[in-house]
Amino acid sequence: MISKENIATGYQQIQDEICAALESLDGKGHFEEEKWERDGGGGGRTRIIQKGNIFEKGGVNFSAVHGQLPESIKKALKVEQDDFFATGISIVIHPNHPMVPIIHMNIRYFEMPSSFGAGSEPVRWFGGGIDLTPHYVIADDARYFHAYLKSVCDKFYPDFYHRFKLWADDYFFIKHRNETRGIGGIFYDRLTASDDLTWDAIFEFSKALGRSFIPIYTELVNRNREKEFTEEQQFWQYQRRSRYTEFNLVYDAGTKFGLETNGRIESILMSLPPTAKWVYNYKAEPGSEEEQTLSLLKKGINWV
Amino acid sequence: MISKENIATGYQQIQDEICAALESLDGKGHFEEEKWERDGGGGGRTRIIQKGNIFEKGGVNFSAVHGQLPESIKKALKVEQDDFFATGISIVIHPNHPMVPIIHMNIRYFEMPSSFGAGSEPVRWFGGGIDLTPHYVIADDARYFHAYLKSVCDKFYPDFYHRFKLWADDYFFIKHRNETRGIGGIFYDRLTASDDLTWDAIFEFSKALGRSFIPIYTELVNRNREKEFTEEQQFWQYQRRSRYTEFNLVYDAGTKFGLETNGRIESILMSLPPTAKWVYNYKAEPGSEEEQTLSLLKKGINWV
Repeated sequence: MISKENIATGYQQIQDEICAALESLDGKGHFEEEKWERDGGGGGRTRIIQKGNIFEKGGVNFSAVHGQLPESIKKALKVEQDDFFATGISIVIHPNHPMVPIIHMNIRYFEMPSSFGAGSEPVRWFGGGIDLTPHYVIADDARYFHAYLKSVCDKFYPDFYHRFKLWADDYFFIKHRNETRGIGGIFYDRLTASDDLTWDAIFEFSKALGRSFIPIYTELVNRNREKEFTEEQQFWQYQRRSRYTEFNLVYDAGTKFGLETNGRIESILMSLPPTAKWVYNYKAEPGSEEEQTLSLLKKGINWV
Repeated sequence: MISKENIATGYQQIQDEICAALESLDGKGHFEEEKWERDGGGGGRTRIIQKGNIFEKGGVNFSAVHGQLPESIKKALKVEQDDFFATGISIVIHPNHPMVPIIHMNIRYFEMPSSFGAGSEPVRWFGGGIDLTPHYVIADDARYFHAYLKSVCDKFYPDFYHRFKLWADDYFFIKHRNETRGIGGIFYDRLTASDDLTWDAIFEFSKALGRSFIPIYTELVNRNREKEFTEEQQFWQYQRRSRYTEFNLVYDAGTKFGLETNGRIESILMSLPPTAKWVYNYKAEPGSEEEQTLSLLKKGINWV
C-alpha cells in the first residue's frame, strides 16, 4: 500500500497540471497562490483565479492536514480515534458565461491509526467526485459529461459508474428546494480495498478522476464560450449561483468538515460565487429555457 | 393568561402597522402578499417589498403554525412533546443604500401541551429580538439604536436590556469569521412568567418591541438615505451581505427550524439578500472606513 506522503505528492502534481491547463484555457487569468499552515497540523496550497476571460472566480486547492478530530466530526464519521490525516484537491469554478457550467471536482484520502494499536494496519479510505452545475442544462453536454465519467470509471471497476452516479444524485441534492444542484456526476466516499480491488487500483482511480477534469472541462468551455447571451440569461445565472451557495452552506460535508476542524476559511469558502442573487418567489416562464432547466434538476435521469 | 389566538391576532395587527409604515417611508415600493398554508397545519401571510426607493428587498412575515415536531427539533428544544403551536413576525430589510443598515426583527410565541396531561398548564414561552447590521458602522446610529432598545426594555424589567444585549452578541455571531453579524441589539428566548413578571407583561413587552421597529428604522433610514455613495461603497455593501447570508444559512436557528419543519421555503429564505458578492481573501485597506467597520464587529461593545 502506497504511503500517505506518496498520495499527497501525487495530488500536488495533479494540482500543478490542472492550474497550468486552466490558465492556458483562460488565456488571461492567473492563479494566485497562498501557502497556509493549519494550527492543529499540516497546511495547503490555495490557488485562486479571478476575473479571467472565462473564469470569473475559481479555486484549485490542495491540502494535507493532520491533528486531532473534534468530537462532532468523530460522531459524524462514526470513529473512535482522535488522530487523523487528510489530503485532497478541491476545485470549484464559476465561469462568467451563463452557458458555461459551474464545475466541482474533489479527490481525497483520509487515514487514522488503527484502534487495535501499533503494528496494525491504519484505518483509511478514499473519496471524491466530479459534478456539473450548468446554469442552463444542455442535453448534449450532459451526455458528454456523463459518458466521459463512465469511461473513466469503467477502466477500474464494472459498477463504479452506476453506484457513484446514484450517490451523486443523492449527495448533490438541495432538499429544501427539492432540486438537484445540477446534473450530478459521480460521488464516492469511504472507498476501501477488497478482494478484487487493491489500494493501488483505488489510488490510480483517484488520480485518473483528477486527470479527467481538464479534458472534460476544456471541452465544455470550448463548446459554449463563444455563444451570445442576454442580460436576462446572466440574471438567471446569478440566481442559479444562489442555489449553489445554499447547497454549500447548508449541506456540503466538506464545507462542514472544514468549518468544524478550524480549516482556513478563505480556502473553504472559495467555492462561493463572485455574485449571487436571491429573488423572492421567482417563477420561470412556462415553456422557457429556464423552466426546461429546472425540469432537469431531478434525481435519476440517465444521461448515458 | 392570554390565549394563543389573541397572541396571533396581536401579532397580525403589528404586521399590518409595520407594512403600512414601511410603504409610506419608502414612497414607491409596495408589499406583495402571499397567504400560504402549511401541510402539517396553520399558515401565514408573507409580505415582500422589492425594488423600492429605499428597500431593495424586504420581508415582513407573519405565521401561525401548528402540528407535530420532527425528532431533530424535539432534540434541539429538549422537549418530549410532539404537538406544537408557534406564531410570530419576522422581518428582514435589505436597503439599496450602503449607508442604510440591514435590520432584522422577530417576535414569537411557542406553545406545547403539558406533558402532565389534560387540565395542566401548557408549556409556553416567548422569544424575539431586534438586531442591526450596518454595512458601515456609524457610531451615532449605533448609540441611538441601543439606547432606544434599552428604553423599551427598561419599561418592563430592570435587567432585560443588559441580559438580552449580551445574548444578541452571542447569538448573532459568525463563528467561522470570528465577527458579529452587525452591532447586535437584543435577543431573548424561552422567556416565561415568574414571580415578578406576568405572562401579560411578557406579551406586552413582545408587542412593544414589535412596535419599536418603525420609529427606530424610520430614524435610521432618514438619517442616511440622502447621503452620496460610491461604487466601491456599494461593492462593500454586497460583500457584507455575503456575511449575512453565511450567518443565516449556517447558524440561524429560525432558518433551521423553518427548513426542518417543512416551512414555506420562499418565506424562510426571504431574508437572503437580492445581490451578494464573495471576493476571495478581501482585505480592507488600513485606515479605511471598511477596516473601521470590521474593528467594530466584535462582542461586548457597550453602545449605551
